[in-house]
Amino acid sequence: MKMKQPDIFKNLKRGPQIITWKDASLIAGFSGAHAGYKIVDAGSGSGFLAIFLGNLVRPGGKVISYEKRKEFAKIARENVKRAKLEDIVIIKEKDIARGIEEHDVDLITLDMAEPWNVVKHANKALKEKGFVVSYSPNIEQVKRFVEECKRHGLRHELTIECILREMVIREKASRPQNKGIMHTGYITFARKVKREGKDKEHGRG
Amino acid sequence: MKMKQPDIFKNLKRGPQIITWKDASLIAGFSGAHAGYKIVDAGSGSGFLAIFLGNLVRPGGKVISYEKRKEFAKIARENVKRAKLEDIVIIKEKDIARGIEEHDVDLITLDMAEPWNVVKHANKALKEKGFVVSYSPNIEQVKRFVEECKRHGLRHELTIECILREMVIREKASRPQNKGIMHTGYITFARKVKREGKDKEHGRG
Amino acid sequence: MKMKQPDIFKNLKRGPQIITWKDASLIAGFSGAHAGYKIVDAGSGSGFLAIFLGNLVRPGGKVISYEKRKEFAKIARENVKRAKLEDIVIIKEKDIARGIEEHDVDLITLDMAEPWNVVKHANKALKEKGFVVSYSPNIEQVKRFVEECKRHGLRHELTIECILREMVIREKASRPQNKGIMHTGYITFARKVKREGKDKEHGRG
Amino acid sequence: MKMKQPDIFKNLKRGPQIITWKDASLIAGFSGAHAGYKIVDAGSGSGFLAIFLGNLVRPGGKVISYEKRKEFAKIARENVKRAKLEDIVIIKEKDIARGIEEHDVDLITLDMAEPWNVVKHANKALKEKGFVVSYSPNIEQVKRFVEECKRHGLRHELTIECILREMVIREKASRPQNKGIMHTGYITFARKVKREGKDKEHGRG
Repeated sequence: MKMKQPDIFKNLKRGPQIITWKDASLIAGFSGAHAGYKIVDAGSGSGFLAIFLGNLVRPGGKVISYEKRKEFAKIARENVKRAKLEDIVIIKEKDIARGIEEHDVDLITLDMAEPWNVVKHANKALKEKGFVVSYSPNIEQVKRFVEECKRHGLRHELTIECILREMVIREKASRPQNKGIMHTGYITFARKVKREGKDKEHGRG
Repeated sequence: MKMKQPDIFKNLKRGPQIITWKDASLIAGFSGAHAGYKIVDAGSGSGFLAIFLGNLVRPGGKVISYEKRKEFAKIARENVKRAKLEDIVIIKEKDIARGIEEHDVDLITLDMAEPWNVVKHANKALKEKGFVVSYSPNIEQVKRFVEECKRHGLRHELTIECILREMVIREKASRPQNKGIMHTGYITFARKVKREGKDKEHGRG
Repeated sequence: MKMKQPDIFKNLKRGPQIITWKDASLIAGFSGAHAGYKIVDAGSGSGFLAIFLGNLVRPGGKVISYEKRKEFAKIARENVKRAKLEDIVIIKEKDIARGIEEHDVDLITLDMAEPWNVVKHANKALKEKGFVVSYSPNIEQVKRFVEECKRHGLRHELTIECILREMVIREKASRPQNKGIMHTGYITFARKVKREGKDKEHGRG
Repeated sequence: MKMKQPDIFKNLKRGPQIITWKDASLIAGFSGAHAGYKIVDAGSGSGFLAIFLGNLVRPGGKVISYEKRKEFAKIARENVKRAKLEDIVIIKEKDIARGIEEHDVDLITLDMAEPWNVVKHANKALKEKGFVVSYSPNIEQVKRFVEECKRHGLRHELTIECILREMVIREKASRPQNKGIMHTGYITFARKVKREGKDKEHGRG
């Protein structure tokens, strides 16, 4: 396979754990990210998801990506430069669990071990109808994140996992590739919807 | 699941066969579609893929969607209006197998029974490094499309299929949904790359 | 598809929740069930898993299947008769959580809501190297069952899930079926292995 | 994972391409193999499928496994000895495409590059209601095998593929394993059913 990555990822330095292309596509596609979106992302890691999203939100959009580990923030910044997205993607060397400085955010993407620590801040930072999306390998992380979202009145929309198989296409030998990645992570979408909690209390209480 | 569709799909009329959200996300994500892209699409069907892409390419981009069946072209146009994308998405009541009128196209998406009939036209219409993507339920369609791409010097990049499972997340009952869609279609990416054929002949011949 | 079921299942009455053929095959294949095996099963439900296993263990083997609900025990018994396995498969109208009356059992299969309640009894009833296998839809059930197995010194061997897709094979239209069962249950294998616990304590403690 | 294989596979020598445990389980489970079955198998390879089936058909059953390559026949025979199944499993150093010497066979399993060459012989060797099962990595092989079965009046019952995922079960980290085998092969079941062809001609012609 020659097409290992979208063009925007070319020439980037790879850290140990980068989001897969399929998951980045689904996060973007399901949350409707497009030009003008204001996105908060954490943790940056090598910056791949931030760059993927940065490519989508220009012109007029912004991706602010939090990364508390100095060495990763450095790699991420370098990658942003290589992708020529310095005007769009900002790497902040900060711990997002301590707070989100942005407001009226369209989308918050969380690729970190304890996404539930960010829900309270996400709820404040998001604009009405905005999404907070977590990307976690383990089902326990999903559960705790969903619980915390509900506790703060964010509506749990959807949790998905995607098994992607590459196909071998030959004249007499077409089949899925034999080996591959069986599991990357669960993607959870929660949404800020006005008075959802209230409606429920009144309507069903 | 409340989140049956991205917001851009709300209020649209559904025809019998619309592309799934996951496949639209992967087509867009893997081909790098973003603001400013010039996309040719066929057939429109109910217009869902054209609208999904239209949302991504604004401002500055364009989606020209070919549909030869009058009744579908009508539904697609109505849906484009409901999605408020009339300035971006054009529904052309024409058979794309007869030719593509556009030039310097970034991406051509083919959700039709015989995508191989369009390869010759796609090759002319695409700009250097542009993608032609087919979306087909059957492996025979994939094979014939890939062969035809190779015959015209387009590079076969990747064929994928995606099994997406929605998760049920409850305090004591987390699991994938029991029923769902097992298979939608194979997505094939081919690319216009200058003198690929020649290089091969010289380099390896 | 004409082949909806193995021949042994023909003419059986179906209750609401029967084990799938694929899962029965994996439980039998991975635990090595064959002629002569002594198997304890619970709950019987409509008796499908007991009958599937009964077919495998004859001659010389036995399947004792516990079912606490009277109406299910009746259906299961009738199905055993229809499958002509009365000499091999015994339906016991008892709650297995209260104890297992058998000894030197090769395999215990648990298709019930709270399989962890049976682990203590399974540990006593199993012969050395025997398997206890749970079949549960939810990950929380798997976790609790695995914990309980470990607590009783049974070795957790393997937890699997199987996505099975039927293929449509036509001259010009080969593909996986579009709809199907996305998830049935997780199958967990634990094994009675002498002094496993002790070795661990001494060897690693 | 400690449980890499069923006990019957322990101590066997592994050749380059052995059938997976899951596929062996499904072949056996779906075709109803049990004590007393007379099975023809080809090619033996390292003998794993023959041994798996040999374990199931004793007492009273037989597995005759054809292998035309001398070195594989030798390995397979050694493995049969290690599994202590010499009385049940016979390795024949012959090319099954030249003919099947057995009659009244319950099940024929074909794990070979060109299973269609055996269909004519299988049709003669099978008893009424017997199964011939092919196991092939590529869809083209499945198609040609199915066509040949139909041409000889064998009924195509089912073609399946199975994606099996092992689960990691930990207190705070439960998920499918990250890497694994994405694709092994398609399993096709065809069946000898009296006058199927004739009924069709008369009934529908």
